[in-house]
Amino acid sequence: MRSAARRLFAELGYDKTTIRAIGREAGVDAALVHHFFGTKEQVFVAAMELPFEPSAVIPEILAGPRDELAERVVRLFLSVWRNPEGRAPILAILRSATTNERAAAMFREFIAAAMLSRLADALGLTRLRVEAAAAQLVGVVLVRYVIGVEPLASASEEQIVRLVTPVLEYYFSAEDHVAVTHRESASPDRR
Amino acid sequence: MRSAARRLFAELGYDKTTIRAIGREAGVDAALVHHFFGTKEQVFVAAMELPFEPSAVIPEILAGPRDELAERVVRLFLSVWRNPEGRAPILAILRSATTNERAAAMFREFIAAAMLSRLADALGLTRLRVEAAAAQLVGVVLVRYVIGVEPLASASEEQIVRLVTPVLEYYFSAEDHVAVTHRESASPDRR
Repeated sequence: MRSAARRLFAELGYDKTTIRAIGREAGVDAALVHHFFGTKEQVFVAAMELPFEPSAVIPEILAGPRDELAERVVRLFLSVWRNPEGRAPILAILRSATTNERAAAMFREFIAAAMLSRLADALGLTRLRVEAAAAQLVGVVLVRYVIGVEPLASASEEQIVRLVTPVLEYYFSAEDHVAVTHRESASPDRR
Repeated sequence: MRSAARRLFAELGYDKTTIRAIGREAGVDAALVHHFFGTKEQVFVAAMELPFEPSAVIPEILAGPRDELAERVVRLFLSVWRNPEGRAPILAILRSATTNERAAAMFREFIAAAMLSRLADALGLTRLRVEAAAAQLVGVVLVRYVIGVEPLASASEEQIVRLVTPVLEYYFSAEDHVAVTHRESASPDRR
């Protein structure tokens, strides 16, 4: 069932694939797909062996005070990438996205539907700001884990949280509030 | 000569490869390699068909007022990635770095020696901050050009410059520069 789902997602993209079509492709009833995996998003997560599930991650991000939102996102993101087994499937998709426009489209549609739009809506931010924040995080793990440049490769997660949180605070603040504030300078008593 | 250089860089990494060894591998005199390409860095740029040459780019970054440094870097970086022919070789290296530790090591050593250390030294910044800034830029072009997520994929370069420059300003400010940054961030007339 997973390989049938992978084939369909790769062929049709995320948006156009339905649970019904995955059932047909796998030769089983759509209800069975739904029973085993849940929503289309959960089928995708299972098929791609992603180390996180947006429907679980997003409520976790949104829970808790807004002024700690940026830090929560940074910590959660780093924790997903910490584990080599968790990184592998995301890197595999990223790699195929660099050569294959279909793979890129599939990933893009999933990310947009499952993460970016929901976060932007829930936080009242433009998609552009949410994407720029995501770009900062993706860049950090790329430099840290794929290229492996020191000292970022062996910096502690705490160091990275301190360094990067002010950037996400900037992106998550309203459009017309521009300068990035040093976290330490904003509230010296915090952390 | 280029393929001999590519073979050696891939095998030995950037740091351990010498012009002499490239000459030997190509069956020509080292002086000829030097005559045709210049420094080891220039051999690497030519062999990998990189769309930029650090020895030319860095002086361009350092020239001009410091308070426009962040914006200069963002504009320069976007201009390198603007062209699909320029992106292809960098993406090829990035792709192989996701599967192959040797390719990652080669790229990492080149980036560290040719760009990061020089910039950190010239600007009096820690390597960590320079790398976090680089991570922001790499993330943006990855989301924009590889995954192709909208609206970042079709945002104008001016929009991206406006959005991302404050982040690089933050990273490029000195570690203990906290009070000044705080004051600056409070002044609403600063872009």
